[in-house]
Amino acid sequence: MDRITIFFATGNIVKVEEAERILKEYNISILHLPMKLLEIQSENLEEIAVFSAQKAWADQEKPLFVEDAGLFIKRLNGFPGPYSSYVFKTISNEGVLGLMAQYEDRIAYFQSVIAFCSGKKTVTFKGEVYGKISRERRGNFGFGFDPIFIPDEGDGRTFGEMNISEKTAISHRTRALRKFAEWVKSTDISKFI
Amino acid sequence: MDRITIFFATGNIVKVEEAERILKEYNISILHLPMKLLEIQSENLEEIAVFSAQKAWADQEKPLFVEDAGLFIKRLNGFPGPYSSYVFKTISNEGVLGLMAQYEDRIAYFQSVIAFCSGKKTVTFKGEVYGKISRERRGNFGFGFDPIFIPDEGDGRTFGEMNISEKTAISHRTRALRKFAEWVKSTDISKFI
Repeated sequence: MDRITIFFATGNIVKVEEAERILKEYNISILHLPMKLLEIQSENLEEIAVFSAQKAWADQEKPLFVEDAGLFIKRLNGFPGPYSSYVFKTISNEGVLGLMAQYEDRIAYFQSVIAFCSGKKTVTFKGEVYGKISRERRGNFGFGFDPIFIPDEGDGRTFGEMNISEKTAISHRTRALRKFAEWVKSTDISKFI
Repeated sequence: MDRITIFFATGNIVKVEEAERILKEYNISILHLPMKLLEIQSENLEEIAVFSAQKAWADQEKPLFVEDAGLFIKRLNGFPGPYSSYVFKTISNEGVLGLMAQYEDRIAYFQSVIAFCSGKKTVTFKGEVYGKISRERRGNFGFGFDPIFIPDEGDGRTFGEMNISEKTAISHRTRALRKFAEWVKSTDISKFI
């Protein structure tokens, strides 16, 4: 089967490298379309990703996907959710640990949503990883809230204590990327382009 | 001079009543255009309001304005800022008080931005009120973060302890509305409609 090329519209080069590593297992090549996405305010990551992908398509007219992710903490009613980047930038891990200090219920999940848009069609793929908010910041790997998130499928270490291949094995983004890749392989994508 | 009628696009009836009260002093009538605005993610309220107003105009083709507001806390790098509604809904006043518990620097301001759009022209107006975050929640007037905000121009009470006319006398929204009203009165607005 021919190699398929799809554009990844994002301003984040680290996400591009991560996606390349996963998608090449499926013989899918991606090209980085560097751009600042237009994101709407919504509590639903899927709604945000769909809007961003359709707007990017309207600007670029290339078959492309976008990815959006967030950390959802149950006891905080989903906070910081879709605003995770902003919350990290302003109050950081220490702020979230402070908000959680008094709570025993530390359940949280990371969610990643990929939205593919070809103009004719928009399709979304979700990946999630469940875990708990740690009591303190641990580890220097990863970024954002990785050092305060302990995945249930791990050995008690935070994402911040795992190297990239350990994290990638179970991460929300990997899961969304694999679902996306499987869809691309099982679909005659040329119909949509 | 003839009475001027402008549409206020918002889903918040309380904002409509507040705007009516201020604008009638200037002989400006408003009509409520009930709608859920499309808001983008940005750290800049003005950018958000301009986008919402232009989108609302594209949908409705009526001369209209929108209003967006947020609480910006200096020590928290502006948090919760443009995401004040979401943050109030998820972690509430108690969450913000917790985040501020350890800090002596309690400086904060409320900002309101009005964006008027007539299709031909978009104009914005800002109002601000400076103050401090209280040590505890006080008062049952107002909404959102009013019970934890002590305006510098007051007598030490929070916005939550002031009745509507006391708050309206100094509020960020009133200030933006007055600037808007003065512009409407001093401009031949029929040129833009």
